[in-house]
Amino acid sequence: MSENDSMAFHWRSRIRVVDTDVSTRIHYSALFRHLEAAETEFLRSLGLEYSRWFEQGYSLPRIHVEADYLAPLCFDDEIDVEVRVERIGESSLTLGFRVIKIASGEEAARGRLVGVCMDIRSGKSTPIPAAIREALEQVQAH
Amino acid sequence: MSENDSMAFHWRSRIRVVDTDVSTRIHYSALFRHLEAAETEFLRSLGLEYSRWFEQGYSLPRIHVEADYLAPLCFDDEIDVEVRVERIGESSLTLGFRVIKIASGEEAARGRLVGVCMDIRSGKSTPIPAAIREALEQVQAH
Amino acid sequence: MSENDSMAFHWRSRIRVVDTDVSTRIHYSALFRHLEAAETEFLRSLGLEYSRWFEQGYSLPRIHVEADYLAPLCFDDEIDVEVRVERIGESSLTLGFRVIKIASGEEAARGRLVGVCMDIRSGKSTPIPAAIREALEQVQAH
Amino acid sequence: MSENDSMAFHWRSRIRVVDTDVSTRIHYSALFRHLEAAETEFLRSLGLEYSRWFEQGYSLPRIHVEADYLAPLCFDDEIDVEVRVERIGESSLTLGFRVIKIASGEEAARGRLVGVCMDIRSGKSTPIPAAIREALEQVQAH
Repeated sequence: MSENDSMAFHWRSRIRVVDTDVSTRIHYSALFRHLEAAETEFLRSLGLEYSRWFEQGYSLPRIHVEADYLAPLCFDDEIDVEVRVERIGESSLTLGFRVIKIASGEEAARGRLVGVCMDIRSGKSTPIPAAIREALEQVQAH
Repeated sequence: MSENDSMAFHWRSRIRVVDTDVSTRIHYSALFRHLEAAETEFLRSLGLEYSRWFEQGYSLPRIHVEADYLAPLCFDDEIDVEVRVERIGESSLTLGFRVIKIASGEEAARGRLVGVCMDIRSGKSTPIPAAIREALEQVQAH
Repeated sequence: MSENDSMAFHWRSRIRVVDTDVSTRIHYSALFRHLEAAETEFLRSLGLEYSRWFEQGYSLPRIHVEADYLAPLCFDDEIDVEVRVERIGESSLTLGFRVIKIASGEEAARGRLVGVCMDIRSGKSTPIPAAIREALEQVQAH
Repeated sequence: MSENDSMAFHWRSRIRVVDTDVSTRIHYSALFRHLEAAETEFLRSLGLEYSRWFEQGYSLPRIHVEADYLAPLCFDDEIDVEVRVERIGESSLTLGFRVIKIASGEEAARGRLVGVCMDIRSGKSTPIPAAIREALEQVQAH
């Protein structure tokens, strides 16, 4: 295991009935619920939970999201969602995700969420506060 | 057609892939998205759109919801959602729904949503404002 | 703690951003995702996971769902979902839910899901298989 | 208006309460429900509705999805979703979306969905059937 691997955050989840569709597999949009849970817990693990952002007058609206679906995910599949900081811009934050099917070890999906730090009062983007930036840089993938 | 029937509001919708699950039918919780669209458009048809409630400092959080599923709804089924005012309490509003499968005329589901008028500043329930009450009474089922 | 209490199954969950709406609280329909996760894990705890139902040719479509909302649930609130077998009919199964806000101990919601055992091939309701019935009876609330 | 513009399909929709979150804006994942409705109706407009794909033994699972959020979408905003065929590969189909806020004419979001034609029996990708390909080529953006 490289130092880099030790920086990744892992979140376990499971595909629910509501996540599936008539294809008998996951509906592509349901994956984002699992990525969001992983993201929220990742930030909490750094002491950067969203409630703290909100209290300080910031939010992190998405400006870009994407996902690749590599192998089918079905009802009851257990997944491991790996989260990494891919990039910290002046005001943007890019998180990368890998979704592993626990039973097979197969990589089932990848995702990327780009948020931009917003000042809630002005509704405008603003530089990521220094304390948040520093905590994120500690775990950034290199 | 009785006078009563003429009071019902009808909203057309269609079951989408995201509404279905591995059973190949609608996921029960997805029905509520269709009821909500019907409810919103019903209130708009009376000039009582939610944006007006919010502007005046009110919201209508749910205190009770229920649904009965009478016949399967599947991907691409067109539905007619009928909305009626079932009861107007001091601060509560009960809406009733019937979902008809358009192709067969079959009744596929029934629903009921009970909301309570809330003063957004205090977070407490408050009597339904007179103007809203009067408009709702005009179309109440008897 | 009564013997009855020891029969209840508990599932911990957390309100996510996707569960909330413009009211800043949970959207009522999002509660059902948490009830479903609790239900699935409850059945698994009895060795009755849905995958076993499907393999044996059965499913459990909902015929009735309901929920009462007693106190606001907001983003990041941790909840304990208690599941109980309320009633086992010839072919129907009624599960009852209580949702407790962990921080305050407050009861935030109640729910009820009624499913009917269906033979997947015929699409018709069928008596709950004896092995499933017996396992459910072991934990039924009295 | 160029010939190209006339090839785009337009679908009107509206942001619902369930689409919003605690930020008071749309939850990013909710946009995909609107894109999906537009996609389904676009294919229907060409006589290529998914029910026909399924009947012929094909499905179109997603291998990639992405979206850019350019301006806030809020509860009750009416949107126009424009759909275009961006690329028809051997077995893949790329659809592009633009979401316009009707009140302001502002472009609020862009999206892209890449599906791959799958033989349902084998679970493997397969060339897009000639009849479907031809109908899609008629409306492909150049």
